[in-house]
Amino acid sequence: MTTITLIGTGNMARAIGTLAVAGGNTVEVMGRDRAKAESLARTLGGGTTTGRWGAAPAGDIVITALLYAGVVPVVAEFGDALAGRIIVDISNPFDATFDGLAHDGQTSIAQEAQKVAPAGASVLKAFNTIFRTVLENGRPDVFFAGDDARAKATFAAFVESLGLRPLDTGGLAMAHWLEGMGVVTVGLAGNGIGHGDFALGVDEFKN
Amino acid sequence: MTTITLIGTGNMARAIGTLAVAGGNTVEVMGRDRAKAESLARTLGGGTTTGRWGAAPAGDIVITALLYAGVVPVVAEFGDALAGRIIVDISNPFDATFDGLAHDGQTSIAQEAQKVAPAGASVLKAFNTIFRTVLENGRPDVFFAGDDARAKATFAAFVESLGLRPLDTGGLAMAHWLEGMGVVTVGLAGNGIGHGDFALGVDEFKN
Repeated sequence: MTTITLIGTGNMARAIGTLAVAGGNTVEVMGRDRAKAESLARTLGGGTTTGRWGAAPAGDIVITALLYAGVVPVVAEFGDALAGRIIVDISNPFDATFDGLAHDGQTSIAQEAQKVAPAGASVLKAFNTIFRTVLENGRPDVFFAGDDARAKATFAAFVESLGLRPLDTGGLAMAHWLEGMGVVTVGLAGNGIGHGDFALGVDEFKN
Repeated sequence: MTTITLIGTGNMARAIGTLAVAGGNTVEVMGRDRAKAESLARTLGGGTTTGRWGAAPAGDIVITALLYAGVVPVVAEFGDALAGRIIVDISNPFDATFDGLAHDGQTSIAQEAQKVAPAGASVLKAFNTIFRTVLENGRPDVFFAGDDARAKATFAAFVESLGLRPLDTGGLAMAHWLEGMGVVTVGLAGNGIGHGDFALGVDEFKN
């Protein structure tokens, strides 16, 4: 089992935290608003603790459960406190019309976060292809990407502890295309095709 | 049922043509090499005909089953012969390292093909998220994108005649992200995760 830190106190933090506690992991919550972090920690139960915003996280895996615009600034703000950690970016940087990404070029929030992360910290992209409601109610596969094989192995074991299947899509450059899969998912939703009606990866499918 | 024309005589033309004939559609094959087109037509059976390269296709739906670099030049070469047709681009424009696209910017082969297509021709992106072997052996969902609602409705009915489920991801700009899903699929394959072990869309999945 793994110790994880959730940076953020919103819906995705609660959904991932719930699965993490159920899977026997140790969870820490950090929020700018300490009261919100303590409230989420109580909701999650299982001995979940809170940490001071900006301090070194207890977790080996640090999940930035933040709106996309917050991820890179927060990784920069935490700075050396994140040294040696596995940082998991779960964000979807949609543009204003929800049919593209907010950034130009073949980059991603994860790749930009890696640029400001301290030495030895390894950024992964994961969970962004899964809507919260699906994470709460289904058994979706978890597509992920990253450059560090050890970090990916640790993360994959954590995902398995959630009862989900980790699917390694490749290096961190693939994070751009995982963000694009988030765009496609929203496009489907805009046409009335809910995430419960399809899946980006399920092991029931056999050809 | 629909009349379709396959431009191209390779594996994807054969796979789609086989499903199309089985679904009761009328099929025409066009190849630069007329002998190859005739050979594929015989293989497909069901009254499949061949047409002269560059002539007006018999099909209301024209599927360019070509390597990506050929699609835009061939649409331009056919020119006014494609007037009023629904042109379906199925290509995957992978870059040399297979972790990105061959073109820069948020474009796609489908969007570039639309630019050179004649008046009244409407380009759709579809089938590129499905490996041939999966199309031959599975029941994959067909993600597609396009700007013309009538063309999309006609195409969706054709996909249903194949026994597959059409999933409309949005406007033609979404073709870029569908091409990205092709990149992710290849990334998974590179990590030993075969297309038979996951799916980009299946209706067995319910949350």
